[in-house]
Amino acid sequence: MAEKKKTNIILFSGDYDKAMAAYIIANGAAAYDHDVTVFHTFWGLNALRKDEKLQPKKTFMEKMFGKMMPRGADKLPLSKMQYGGMGPKMIKAVMKKHNAMSLPDLIDMAKEQDITILACTMTMDLLGLKEEELLDGIEYGGVAAYIAEGEDGAINLFV
Amino acid sequence: MAEKKKTNIILFSGDYDKAMAAYIIANGAAAYDHDVTVFHTFWGLNALRKDEKLQPKKTFMEKMFGKMMPRGADKLPLSKMQYGGMGPKMIKAVMKKHNAMSLPDLIDMAKEQDITILACTMTMDLLGLKEEELLDGIEYGGVAAYIAEGEDGAINLFV
Amino acid sequence: MAEKKKTNIILFSGDYDKAMAAYIIANGAAAYDHDVTVFHTFWGLNALRKDEKLQPKKTFMEKMFGKMMPRGADKLPLSKMQYGGMGPKMIKAVMKKHNAMSLPDLIDMAKEQDITILACTMTMDLLGLKEEELLDGIEYGGVAAYIAEGEDGAINLFV
Repeated sequence: MAEKKKTNIILFSGDYDKAMAAYIIANGAAAYDHDVTVFHTFWGLNALRKDEKLQPKKTFMEKMFGKMMPRGADKLPLSKMQYGGMGPKMIKAVMKKHNAMSLPDLIDMAKEQDITILACTMTMDLLGLKEEELLDGIEYGGVAAYIAEGEDGAINLFV
Repeated sequence: MAEKKKTNIILFSGDYDKAMAAYIIANGAAAYDHDVTVFHTFWGLNALRKDEKLQPKKTFMEKMFGKMMPRGADKLPLSKMQYGGMGPKMIKAVMKKHNAMSLPDLIDMAKEQDITILACTMTMDLLGLKEEELLDGIEYGGVAAYIAEGEDGAINLFV
Repeated sequence: MAEKKKTNIILFSGDYDKAMAAYIIANGAAAYDHDVTVFHTFWGLNALRKDEKLQPKKTFMEKMFGKMMPRGADKLPLSKMQYGGMGPKMIKAVMKKHNAMSLPDLIDMAKEQDITILACTMTMDLLGLKEEELLDGIEYGGVAAYIAEGEDGAINLFV
């Protein structure tokens, strides 16, 4: 058993709280010396969007999706207690007071800990998200990439 | 290790996008030669309903649930961006354009790949769903059936 | 392989139906002689709140969270078909008729089966939940406690 244990998290959700949970577990597992992959699919891709208004060439539908979906980790809504945006502000205020790491900080930490951040190319195609719109330093793959990692995982989660 | 690896997915959610993710992973794992089971429980059962108006004998409450819940995979709402039904139409239009498989197609493919589709009998009792209302070619079982499969799973997910 | 198999469930969700699913699986796995842990984090902590109005010393924000979040397992909303509270009433009526166990009963049964119920201390800090507000007979820990259990889990789920 010289090999490292693996943790693979599918982040399907585009909610701030769920993405936070995913990255807290990911960073925790990396601290326990696991090989960790976070596979962003569907709405989970929004956590990887850059907080800039890029204008890549898009179809009408892709532009619509682009406008309707949150632009980056800091813009994600909560899965509960959204209250028209007040919930996220409250949570972020409390987190700051407790010196808890924000979601963008958790993602930065994941990169520093060599966690593989994988963006689902199939969903990117569907939603019209381009590589230039997503964070630097991430990898790209489809369901095959996930299965290859997941089948050896000590911890596999769908968030 | 002559035995096949196992993937077991609990589909609790009744959302189109989540069910799609579950069946993309299920079909992907089957393509990698895993023994795959999708265990439909709670709202996940709605993905298995036939798109017909059957009239099995039901109590008042069962009829209510029957009316309130979506009738089959194609009728499921999205977990995000539902927008009174516009979201699912947009997603399906985009999927068609990209030649991506619809949820009903993904379920058909799962059957062709010999994926076991298991309907949770306990929830069927609670919600008053009868076998005749669900797709043909599926199996029935409770939590014991799930544990028996899940405890040997290489990939276990709750969707 | 004299050791018991392990099942570890992260209960992130604060929904009645999802918590029910988590505890049905947990109790099922315990019946199959697994070592079982349910790790309550984020909104999942609400399932562990006592159904009493305690008045621990809290900041303004902590009081707000305390008021906004449901007080105990029996008060949780549904993830679907909430209908201003009618959904949970319907489900509970049907469950009673079918002699299905309620969520509080399932949690009691989990304790009797020696399932470890773990409350996430990091989220308790964030949301201002105190030990005296949570059920007796539970344990406390952070992400490290989860990883230590989860990395040996036969079944790991995120609910």
